[in-house]
Amino acid sequence: MIIIMDKNSSDQQIQHVLEMLFNRGFDVHRSSGASQIVLGVVGDTQSVDVRDFEVFDGVSEVIRISEPYKLASRTFKQENTIVKVGNVEFGGNKIGLIAGPCSIESREQIKKIAKFVSQTGTGMLRGGAYKPRTSPYSFQGMGEEGLKYLREAGDENGIAVVSEVMDRMDIIPALKYVDMIQVGARNMQNFALLKELGKVDKPILLKRGMSATIKELLMAAEYIMSGGNHNIVLCERGIRTFETFTRNTLDISAIPVLKSLTHLPIITDPSHGVGIRDKIAPMARASIAAGADGLIIETHYDPEAAFSDGAQTLYFDQYEELVKEVKIIASAVNRTV
Amino acid sequence: MIIIMDKNSSDQQIQHVLEMLFNRGFDVHRSSGASQIVLGVVGDTQSVDVRDFEVFDGVSEVIRISEPYKLASRTFKQENTIVKVGNVEFGGNKIGLIAGPCSIESREQIKKIAKFVSQTGTGMLRGGAYKPRTSPYSFQGMGEEGLKYLREAGDENGIAVVSEVMDRMDIIPALKYVDMIQVGARNMQNFALLKELGKVDKPILLKRGMSATIKELLMAAEYIMSGGNHNIVLCERGIRTFETFTRNTLDISAIPVLKSLTHLPIITDPSHGVGIRDKIAPMARASIAAGADGLIIETHYDPEAAFSDGAQTLYFDQYEELVKEVKIIASAVNRTV
Amino acid sequence: MIIIMDKNSSDQQIQHVLEMLFNRGFDVHRSSGASQIVLGVVGDTQSVDVRDFEVFDGVSEVIRISEPYKLASRTFKQENTIVKVGNVEFGGNKIGLIAGPCSIESREQIKKIAKFVSQTGTGMLRGGAYKPRTSPYSFQGMGEEGLKYLREAGDENGIAVVSEVMDRMDIIPALKYVDMIQVGARNMQNFALLKELGKVDKPILLKRGMSATIKELLMAAEYIMSGGNHNIVLCERGIRTFETFTRNTLDISAIPVLKSLTHLPIITDPSHGVGIRDKIAPMARASIAAGADGLIIETHYDPEAAFSDGAQTLYFDQYEELVKEVKIIASAVNRTV
Amino acid sequence: MIIIMDKNSSDQQIQHVLEMLFNRGFDVHRSSGASQIVLGVVGDTQSVDVRDFEVFDGVSEVIRISEPYKLASRTFKQENTIVKVGNVEFGGNKIGLIAGPCSIESREQIKKIAKFVSQTGTGMLRGGAYKPRTSPYSFQGMGEEGLKYLREAGDENGIAVVSEVMDRMDIIPALKYVDMIQVGARNMQNFALLKELGKVDKPILLKRGMSATIKELLMAAEYIMSGGNHNIVLCERGIRTFETFTRNTLDISAIPVLKSLTHLPIITDPSHGVGIRDKIAPMARASIAAGADGLIIETHYDPEAAFSDGAQTLYFDQYEELVKEVKIIASAVNRTV
Repeated sequence: MIIIMDKNSSDQQIQHVLEMLFNRGFDVHRSSGASQIVLGVVGDTQSVDVRDFEVFDGVSEVIRISEPYKLASRTFKQENTIVKVGNVEFGGNKIGLIAGPCSIESREQIKKIAKFVSQTGTGMLRGGAYKPRTSPYSFQGMGEEGLKYLREAGDENGIAVVSEVMDRMDIIPALKYVDMIQVGARNMQNFALLKELGKVDKPILLKRGMSATIKELLMAAEYIMSGGNHNIVLCERGIRTFETFTRNTLDISAIPVLKSLTHLPIITDPSHGVGIRDKIAPMARASIAAGADGLIIETHYDPEAAFSDGAQTLYFDQYEELVKEVKIIASAVNRTV
Repeated sequence: MIIIMDKNSSDQQIQHVLEMLFNRGFDVHRSSGASQIVLGVVGDTQSVDVRDFEVFDGVSEVIRISEPYKLASRTFKQENTIVKVGNVEFGGNKIGLIAGPCSIESREQIKKIAKFVSQTGTGMLRGGAYKPRTSPYSFQGMGEEGLKYLREAGDENGIAVVSEVMDRMDIIPALKYVDMIQVGARNMQNFALLKELGKVDKPILLKRGMSATIKELLMAAEYIMSGGNHNIVLCERGIRTFETFTRNTLDISAIPVLKSLTHLPIITDPSHGVGIRDKIAPMARASIAAGADGLIIETHYDPEAAFSDGAQTLYFDQYEELVKEVKIIASAVNRTV
Repeated sequence: MIIIMDKNSSDQQIQHVLEMLFNRGFDVHRSSGASQIVLGVVGDTQSVDVRDFEVFDGVSEVIRISEPYKLASRTFKQENTIVKVGNVEFGGNKIGLIAGPCSIESREQIKKIAKFVSQTGTGMLRGGAYKPRTSPYSFQGMGEEGLKYLREAGDENGIAVVSEVMDRMDIIPALKYVDMIQVGARNMQNFALLKELGKVDKPILLKRGMSATIKELLMAAEYIMSGGNHNIVLCERGIRTFETFTRNTLDISAIPVLKSLTHLPIITDPSHGVGIRDKIAPMARASIAAGADGLIIETHYDPEAAFSDGAQTLYFDQYEELVKEVKIIASAVNRTV
Repeated sequence: MIIIMDKNSSDQQIQHVLEMLFNRGFDVHRSSGASQIVLGVVGDTQSVDVRDFEVFDGVSEVIRISEPYKLASRTFKQENTIVKVGNVEFGGNKIGLIAGPCSIESREQIKKIAKFVSQTGTGMLRGGAYKPRTSPYSFQGMGEEGLKYLREAGDENGIAVVSEVMDRMDIIPALKYVDMIQVGARNMQNFALLKELGKVDKPILLKRGMSATIKELLMAAEYIMSGGNHNIVLCERGIRTFETFTRNTLDISAIPVLKSLTHLPIITDPSHGVGIRDKIAPMARASIAAGADGLIIETHYDPEAAFSDGAQTLYFDQYEELVKEVKIIASAVNRTV
């Protein structure tokens, strides 16, 4: 951490800052230039709120040099983390695909979709049992019963399954049935949940919050990792911007940025990212071209009858077409599906 | 709900849309102009996802006319809801003030602050026991022990107390100790939590999420109200924008907008809104001038030593000064503190 | 245009709205449902400000059905517009590439870069002569002298040239030297400039403003087209969001969205979009994978010595590599470079 | 400027950075801590693009310490600048009020409004002659003829007048007729225009761009000031955010922030800021409560018939009421109107 004092800061002001630093156990390197005094703070400043020092009289600016995350950082671990779920891998040369309906609606529905999904060569099935709906009057999901059907559907077709939990209380039932636990965008900073997931021995699919910076996404991963669980797949799913034509703005540039900052795999969710059915395939292609390690896509045999998110759910033939396109782009960037 | 068909939509396309509407039990008024066909949908469209119809071939646009919230709406209830907590009222002529530290740090700390707060005529004490911190390496709060001290501090000084819960599991302990339960910005769309708070018979302080629209804030209130709990105070605390000078952008215009859309009281949190100590008082004055029903402010006898958010915490003398200023502005808009 | 009246609107209020509509020469279709009265407005509402009617007592909402742009719309012209500049085409099957330095710095510099650019098979050269710099103390461009060198450099190497004008007064000199005139992001709503460019018979490269919606970009194109100039290439170059890691957020989803709304070609500018040298290639690949018709890229033989934007300027070998990658992705989406 | 090298940066990398600094004529203070090497750069770094150094291998971060603006800074000039236009002052103890129609529509219209405006004690009249309209099919303003009527209207009623110019070519006619020249939000970074206005000896009303940061607003002021014209009034008029209920989000917190960063006066434009007639008064009150030096408000005897922006234009009686409210709030913060 570096503290830059005002040009006109008094000795007393500098002294006060130094004392506050010493009180917290830090060492300080002081360097004085023609027009500024710079204090280099030595020690573990990871948990310091820089604003604590910015407010002191005489302080001009405080800059945190070390990243606030450690375990998630590429500096901490150079090589890519490869997260394996069933036969699917995220973070290696192969692209990992996840597909399925927004919501689990019935045993028949999820089985029918699972069968189709596995036939396309997709290794993982998604399906929501606890649904975060913006209206209390909308379908709220089947709960644990849904998870049971999801498990059966996955097992019958030899593919792994992932589903979202909405808070700590959903973890126990989820562990019984799923291979990977999803944290939704609205829960990315549900710290109680993240901490609990740090103790779990199943991989986590962590979605970026819709107003979360890339650094905050990595801090959320750090929460889980600091509890001991290092099997995390990050997922870009669109950020909130002033543009209203698309549901969100899928931040494709987050892919190369995250690739340089962290060793964790990164996939995208174009279904939520754009929210318009016929824009999903171009965004899926763009994601792979930019270096994404995988995709999570919503598909249903009858999107018009889907209980939720039908408008951004692909028809089966659209999904088959998308898988073909993704394979072509993947080979263009020297990867396989 | 109104569905506008493309100029060139075919009879078959229109027929398909009509069928889907009839299947869901809606009546339809059809009106044809020179250049467009408009379908007026009659029935309870509250839980319809408009995108379900936007994706049909031949559909140009779908507009939801009725608001997606009902109980929270000014149309549903004309007169202001007044929420009473201890001796404090929100939503009536009197301005309600809440003050206290970011975190409860010890029995002594919270008692000392409670004493000061009550002396300024402030009727409610705040203090966090479960802290949503962006870093897992930061102070995480005292938990239930903290709530106990908060209760004691409130009782000794005859003021009500409010504290934040982080998920459903925190509700039971919170109910034992606090007069009002706070839902933080990061939890505004923690729907499992909101639903549970609908069953609670204590008032709720609901903070706007940092990327939540005004409509989404009202939908979050609707979640709680649909469970039976109508005692909600809304709180604007800053939205995330491109401007980085302030921690967030306190959306003062949300105050008059919410006043026209809902009967629920609305207060602001300038401490989190701007995040810079010396900008808090101007924003508190602006809030009251714009019609806010109250304020929640962070104060501490030694902000520099505070365990969290020290930089946006007022010194005691600053808070006293702020209360004076707020009284003057309040009387300028014909209200009292 | 459709006007939805409040449930409780009075006959008098409805009458007032009807009169205002008749005064402006519109016909009205009135349809009354159980809970709402809907007025369908017939006539050319293109230039109506919907808010003019929203403010009337008794009005609940006003919806513009027809797009505010006409000439730029896919409805107006179904087939793609192909803009030809020299040997380069935008909007057909071939991908158009533009490359060159941020600023023209000297005759030697631009000639050296032009030679390299043409050798990579890139058909157009860029170079700024009038520079929109955020600081008045930064290099402001060589002006007309620069344009002269740009022309020479293009001619010597048989490639077309494009450069930015900053206001109406720059158009006359620009016309003498360039094959295509660029409107920068900060000028996208410089309406005086747009109107003047409508009278020019050279193609326009129109960049999206950093806070412009997709609709506003199309309205800016409409300004130029309404003056008679239909040769416009749109350019996505990143929008301003809360994310600060990248200079802007390149909105890749704008590509498929624009492809469906307009017949005009759309390219991207990943250099300005991300602003970080090693993230440019992934974003260029993503753009092509999503369906972009071309790219504009900054390159320089010595980026470290460039007078402006060096940090986002590619080294020659990096640009060569990028052209190769773009060719591979282009063929993956059945296009050529 | 401070350059922080990577923990693992090589001697060669450090040497390269040092050379580049020396080449540009800077001195360097080097300080090495346990885990980092920090280079303090001494010299005038005002015009350096920090990214030029961020891209060097081995560099972790580059921080600009000195503000990029100089003349506009509070450090450069401690006491408030007071801008006088006719009988109105901005930046002193008195609040300056500007009112009038969005567009000048006719000699009669502007004279009628001028008379009313002067009767309310408002010292300045606004009125647009060159209109930046998003649609080419909307009313585009009366041009120079309008300015003539504006001048006459001001003179007849003894009040000063302000009007907007759209580019450099409008300056000459504007100088003949107006007392203050307005730069609109869309032109805040029209650098050719700003430079030209630096040579003018009339005060400038500089509006914040809708996606401009506070720093960029000050850089725009710096452009004008660096040309010699220091008579600038800044104007906050709403920034673009994800919230769509209001036209823009009026950033009230920019008022206290600007007050601490610059000596220039700051007013707000609540009409454009919220864009909804009945929300203008609360936002005007909030602005004054937060410390604004003035207001610019749209008013018209018949807003429903106004050629532009009618929906955000106050009726005469509403404006009279607003002036009364502003006076009360002003006295609450020890100021006068």
